[in-house]
Amino acid sequence: MISMVRAIRFEEVDAAGIVFFGRFLSYAHEAMESFFDGVEGKYAGLIMERRIGLPAVNVETRYLAPLRYGESIRIETSTARLGNRSATLRYRLFRTHDEVLSAEILHTVVLSDLTQMKSCPMPDDVRRVFETHLETSPKTPEESHAAHS
Amino acid sequence: MISMVRAIRFEEVDAAGIVFFGRFLSYAHEAMESFFDGVEGKYAGLIMERRIGLPAVNVETRYLAPLRYGESIRIETSTARLGNRSATLRYRLFRTHDEVLSAEILHTVVLSDLTQMKSCPMPDDVRRVFETHLETSPKTPEESHAAHS
Amino acid sequence: MISMVRAIRFEEVDAAGIVFFGRFLSYAHEAMESFFDGVEGKYAGLIMERRIGLPAVNVETRYLAPLRYGESIRIETSTARLGNRSATLRYRLFRTHDEVLSAEILHTVVLSDLTQMKSCPMPDDVRRVFETHLETSPKTPEESHAAHS
Amino acid sequence: MISMVRAIRFEEVDAAGIVFFGRFLSYAHEAMESFFDGVEGKYAGLIMERRIGLPAVNVETRYLAPLRYGESIRIETSTARLGNRSATLRYRLFRTHDEVLSAEILHTVVLSDLTQMKSCPMPDDVRRVFETHLETSPKTPEESHAAHS
Repeated sequence: MISMVRAIRFEEVDAAGIVFFGRFLSYAHEAMESFFDGVEGKYAGLIMERRIGLPAVNVETRYLAPLRYGESIRIETSTARLGNRSATLRYRLFRTHDEVLSAEILHTVVLSDLTQMKSCPMPDDVRRVFETHLETSPKTPEESHAAHS
Repeated sequence: MISMVRAIRFEEVDAAGIVFFGRFLSYAHEAMESFFDGVEGKYAGLIMERRIGLPAVNVETRYLAPLRYGESIRIETSTARLGNRSATLRYRLFRTHDEVLSAEILHTVVLSDLTQMKSCPMPDDVRRVFETHLETSPKTPEESHAAHS
Repeated sequence: MISMVRAIRFEEVDAAGIVFFGRFLSYAHEAMESFFDGVEGKYAGLIMERRIGLPAVNVETRYLAPLRYGESIRIETSTARLGNRSATLRYRLFRTHDEVLSAEILHTVVLSDLTQMKSCPMPDDVRRVFETHLETSPKTPEESHAAHS
Repeated sequence: MISMVRAIRFEEVDAAGIVFFGRFLSYAHEAMESFFDGVEGKYAGLIMERRIGLPAVNVETRYLAPLRYGESIRIETSTARLGNRSATLRYRLFRTHDEVLSAEILHTVVLSDLTQMKSCPMPDDVRRVFETHLETSPKTPEESHAAHS
């Protein structure tokens, strides 16, 4: 699991006064970019030089507590599932001032050749990042309890 | 089901050259706003005058085909589920040039008092809009086939 | 001069409750895109097929009255100046509910080859659009005075 | 002058492959927020608790060199002019990899009571920040005879 902290920005709230629900995916992408900081050329190098991307095929977000301007979030990113050409990232967004879990995002990506826009084998350095942060199971106390009941 | 057509905008693509995955939720919200055009004062009136909002509690998006600048989408919006204080909207985004389904979004919202930021009863006029566009079941050919097999 | 009407969107306001000042340039770009609707393949065709763009070299915005969610704007677009490889677009954004001028934007662009990212001659069809909407002078009282001094 | 460094984000480029011209104002605002980090409660405290904002009345941007995904910028912020209820911030955005000046922005703001949305006297702590970073003139190395230094 890697962790990053980020302030909510002035323009990220909507007319209801809370962070727009689509913005949470921007936060997820930002966390994914930092997740791959260890890859040579970082995530930007993958995209711009190697022309390999990780387009989403599925995203599920549970929104648990709203975010407001002036708050900060800590995003914890881990690999929930690792496949052959695909993987599922899990992001947990915590408000730093009260440690409340604001949202949990499951983001399934497929390694893709951006020139042809079709799936491609997962490069070794990308796989290593996913493996390093692969969740062990059972992951949460709740899940662990569920397994016994 | 209501339907709206919208062009992809210049700034909605990302460094991979396709529409950013978070933008799909902006499209969904835009479709939801037009979904409520029949309510007095429209969606904006709900938010700004009545201070009632529909914050998301869950969103699931399947991304099936990328979108690029210069293309247009048709968004078909329906009510997949209608509860007491909550509802699930279904958005299907079709590329207009080839009728390919680009994405399907399930968006669960809870009627909320924006001043107190807690759930509230669903106003009658809001419920009527959800009811008018409630899906009959079985909904899709696949589901209909599944029922027979 | 061409004119388009557009509703302020839910997510375009900021934490101060008014449209974020940077969004006005999104509105300007949207108006520029519709300004070139008469060009074959529209603005998107210029960018995506002919690989010709109009990057900004200078933008000046006067903000005169705030915009809020629920309001609409009418954007009037004209050519304030037409040069050899460059032009200045003028956008005037009026709130439709009270006809108040919310902002005026002067946007100077240079015709550019996007592959080499350097200036290029202005295609005839692009020039024709600028010419069709070229302001007659003197346009403003100030300019008219300047012409006499 | 204060300085901050920021990476260009994946979703900040447009269909021409460079950072969208409106995004530069997001960068400016981000720099302004950090400019006021020394004020109690920071910029967010001004907006959310004291309900004092700094809406723009005028912004002029010169775009000198494009920005791409994978690059970073250093934003240098100073006070170009300090008035009674208004001030002009100057942002200079440098690409960190080649020290090229990408853009210069002059951003004139008016201290405003966000509840009434009208100008108000400048609080002392806000004025102190502007004063601390007020440019002496002549301002730039060029102006101050680079040949002598």
